[in-house]
Amino acid sequence: MENKNINFSCPVEINEVKKILLAHGSGGRMSNDLIDKLFLSNFNNDFLNEKNDSAIINIEGIRFAFTTDSFVVKPIFFPGGNIGDLAINGTVNDLAVCGAKPLFISVGLIIEEGFDISHLELIVQSMKKAADNSGVQIVTGDTKVVEKGSCDKIFINTSGIGVINKGINLSPKNCKPGDVIIINGGIAEHGIAVMASREGLEFETTIKSDTAALNRLTEQVLSKSNRISMMRDPTRGGLSSSLNEIASVSHTVIEIEETSIPIKEEVKGACEILGFDPLQVANEGKLLLFVDESDADFILDTMKKNPLGKDSSIIGKVVKDHPGVVTIKTSIGTSRIVEMLSGEQLPRIC
Amino acid sequence: MENKNINFSCPVEINEVKKILLAHGSGGRMSNDLIDKLFLSNFNNDFLNEKNDSAIINIEGIRFAFTTDSFVVKPIFFPGGNIGDLAINGTVNDLAVCGAKPLFISVGLIIEEGFDISHLELIVQSMKKAADNSGVQIVTGDTKVVEKGSCDKIFINTSGIGVINKGINLSPKNCKPGDVIIINGGIAEHGIAVMASREGLEFETTIKSDTAALNRLTEQVLSKSNRISMMRDPTRGGLSSSLNEIASVSHTVIEIEETSIPIKEEVKGACEILGFDPLQVANEGKLLLFVDESDADFILDTMKKNPLGKDSSIIGKVVKDHPGVVTIKTSIGTSRIVEMLSGEQLPRIC
Repeated sequence: MENKNINFSCPVEINEVKKILLAHGSGGRMSNDLIDKLFLSNFNNDFLNEKNDSAIINIEGIRFAFTTDSFVVKPIFFPGGNIGDLAINGTVNDLAVCGAKPLFISVGLIIEEGFDISHLELIVQSMKKAADNSGVQIVTGDTKVVEKGSCDKIFINTSGIGVINKGINLSPKNCKPGDVIIINGGIAEHGIAVMASREGLEFETTIKSDTAALNRLTEQVLSKSNRISMMRDPTRGGLSSSLNEIASVSHTVIEIEETSIPIKEEVKGACEILGFDPLQVANEGKLLLFVDESDADFILDTMKKNPLGKDSSIIGKVVKDHPGVVTIKTSIGTSRIVEMLSGEQLPRIC
Repeated sequence: MENKNINFSCPVEINEVKKILLAHGSGGRMSNDLIDKLFLSNFNNDFLNEKNDSAIINIEGIRFAFTTDSFVVKPIFFPGGNIGDLAINGTVNDLAVCGAKPLFISVGLIIEEGFDISHLELIVQSMKKAADNSGVQIVTGDTKVVEKGSCDKIFINTSGIGVINKGINLSPKNCKPGDVIIINGGIAEHGIAVMASREGLEFETTIKSDTAALNRLTEQVLSKSNRISMMRDPTRGGLSSSLNEIASVSHTVIEIEETSIPIKEEVKGACEILGFDPLQVANEGKLLLFVDESDADFILDTMKKNPLGKDSSIIGKVVKDHPGVVTIKTSIGTSRIVEMLSGEQLPRIC
């Protein structure tokens, strides 16, 4: 062996792991490792290195956002939505948080032989409704069918294109000390709603997924302030993974306050029962917004007037330049580091 | 029962079939039924109604092609390629045949837990090589991991964006009596190569998949003639399904000559052994081009000079206006109707 040092790093590095693990798709640390060590190193280009929710591409002087997402959520119908509207809203949101106006969506379906056509029809109708709600058009598609047992019911890929108006330049790299962090409402709702509806989880709630299109809200705030540094929708891996990524890319310390983070009592209770940290549970209709402190109150008020932002709250701030760390002031007054999700709580949350 | 009439139509209509069948993903008649009766009727818009390989979208005066394709080929490594380069070339070609210069590609991976990372690396490297060969950039991606048994190894979605130069207006609707049909080489190679490499098929050949990026060839012919009516890559469902679709959309009769259709002896033999009609077997690097007869010989010569077109041949022509029919003059001098694939030969060919 060339290298005789024993490596104590944890979680295991991709170089040591020879098989794909569920945690590679968690949106947390192992996902990030896979992206860095396999995809970025091979596909190596500035678009991917930005690590944005969408690639920002320039064609003949017009800036576009281009994004893709595959949806493998289980079960495919859950309280508050299904895989169809989730797939449309998810891709709309990836465009919207980059400051783009979402315009066109593609749909790629992989369906298991024997799948009920009546279920497919419900999903397709939900996709159409979600597309109409957010003002996008489904313009191209593809359908593959695989033998029974070769996929689990249905997987949906949506890719999307949006156009970015001149003057809008959002990037995690813009985040700077003094920026205030706002979220538009209660966290962990999507994750808990999906988990609660899984077979085998003996646990009942009235919690619904927060799946929703955020583009009306993002367009509204962007039209009111040019001091927004960046936005993100904290989905897989939850708030903690998004904040850690942003802190890492912007080389800052992010400080959040536990008591300021909106969370429904029932969601909080469910997280306690299941042993989950709500900061690591998936969201779908949540917007994380970084804005210069001078515009923070004004943007908070603007967001509160939007139905999707009525529970908006300032949850923290960027405090200083330093290699990416996220800390939280807890409800009992202590401070701790917020870790990125490193394993996988429950797979197939989106 | 409201309707007492017994319906003798064949193949079964989607309204009668309550479950998704493999044939719904064949690229043949049942795929078309599903698209018409479920997707077009729900998503209803002019982009989808065009039934092109890509949607042609207009943003601020620039015309783009936008397309998506999911790849579920089995096995994932086959003679001549793997699921990685297939996924890049397939999407590049869907853009190219619409007259676009392919620019940006997204990659959505769905991976089965336990998949070998070394295999993933090979696939990723093939994707990078294929992207470089065709001059596109992989700019955005997504990775999902599902539990062992919930998908078969790896599925890849690629979506793509290309820009269409002014003056290029390709559409199956342009096809008119007098148009000559050219193909760039031997048919049925991809399908036979994949079939031959399936476990359980005791049958050996040296036939390789024809997977290749066609964009250099399409750009070349488009720069030489403005009399090209349309182009298509006849993949799933083979030449017969593509020609039937084109005849149907353009309301013409298409007449092809069996003896003019390039096919390698070994491929022909394999089709005979397996009982397949080579006209219905999948291709991946084939270009079907409709051009006004005045430019046909010149375009044929141009294509023959390109390495991907050295076996190009004129295979038929559009003969008259009439609701879509495809006929073939056979090698023994008779004439018969060429049917679109109605069932499914072997699933997961791409």
